[in-house]
Amino acid sequence: MKKDSVIFKRRSIRAYDSSKKVSKEQIVDMLDAAMHAPTAMNTQPWEFMVATDPEAVAKIMKIHPYCQSLKEAGAAVVVCANLDKEFRTPSGGYAIYDCSAATQNLLLRAAELGLGTCWCGIAPEKELMGAFRKAFSMPENIEPMALVIVGYPAENPQISPRYDESKVHWQKW
Amino acid sequence: MKKDSVIFKRRSIRAYDSSKKVSKEQIVDMLDAAMHAPTAMNTQPWEFMVATDPEAVAKIMKIHPYCQSLKEAGAAVVVCANLDKEFRTPSGGYAIYDCSAATQNLLLRAAELGLGTCWCGIAPEKELMGAFRKAFSMPENIEPMALVIVGYPAENPQISPRYDESKVHWQKW
Repeated sequence: MKKDSVIFKRRSIRAYDSSKKVSKEQIVDMLDAAMHAPTAMNTQPWEFMVATDPEAVAKIMKIHPYCQSLKEAGAAVVVCANLDKEFRTPSGGYAIYDCSAATQNLLLRAAELGLGTCWCGIAPEKELMGAFRKAFSMPENIEPMALVIVGYPAENPQISPRYDESKVHWQKW
Repeated sequence: MKKDSVIFKRRSIRAYDSSKKVSKEQIVDMLDAAMHAPTAMNTQPWEFMVATDPEAVAKIMKIHPYCQSLKEAGAAVVVCANLDKEFRTPSGGYAIYDCSAATQNLLLRAAELGLGTCWCGIAPEKELMGAFRKAFSMPENIEPMALVIVGYPAENPQISPRYDESKVHWQKW
């Protein structure tokens, strides 16, 4: 059963097959998965910018320094926090947790669909966030958080064991 | 196929069956799933405190104001960031994203095992983080981030559609 779960099979993919294109239906399916993540007070404080047109893809590649494989992958989702919708307390906001959980759902759903992904950070890099906001005319309340490259994998990275008992503290520290 | 994916079936569970106990084997399986999340520069900057003994559970219930259902659930995992291990740049650290992705993996794996979970925030609440750190003698470099209640569900919340096209921006904002 464990080996069947995509959680244990997903790997970050850095080589893509440019002869196959991710479909709109697949993207919508992945975004649906993202929107099934839990959020603080059920605020669902996310927005998603999808780039599949060559111009939008090229724009992203100009901005982000570590997304060369996007060229072959051909599609990307920019996961953004909507600061007007997040749950906030005097200590801070929760969108960052909510949107990270949504991003993980997106990666896992892509793997279930036979697609590869790579999560490239945008936040907390202030300059990079500003560059995305400017290039895509995102409103001030929108905080671009993660760039997810999506495409058909052209590599199949080995799965290695990850469980590390030294990081588990039973009942006490 | 979509209906088979746990991503679309997981719900936050707030009523648990106290007659059944989560096993150590199940917890290890869930932590293994958590440790399969992607992390910035593969730093894997997480630590997990597991509470299954009644004393540890009672200690958490004294500290966290919104975890009443932990009493029936009987088990909890405190997902923590290890600030000494996270990838950092002048703009900030990445542990918060990494640990949120790990937490989502943990919730999904629990659902695959037939268990229920509820993600209760600890960060960014400074007082709450300090209370956990003090009660469990966590070192200064450890930042408790999320409390995940784990148990056998005693409710089966309805699944409602979550996809919201108004939050999707195709090619541009």
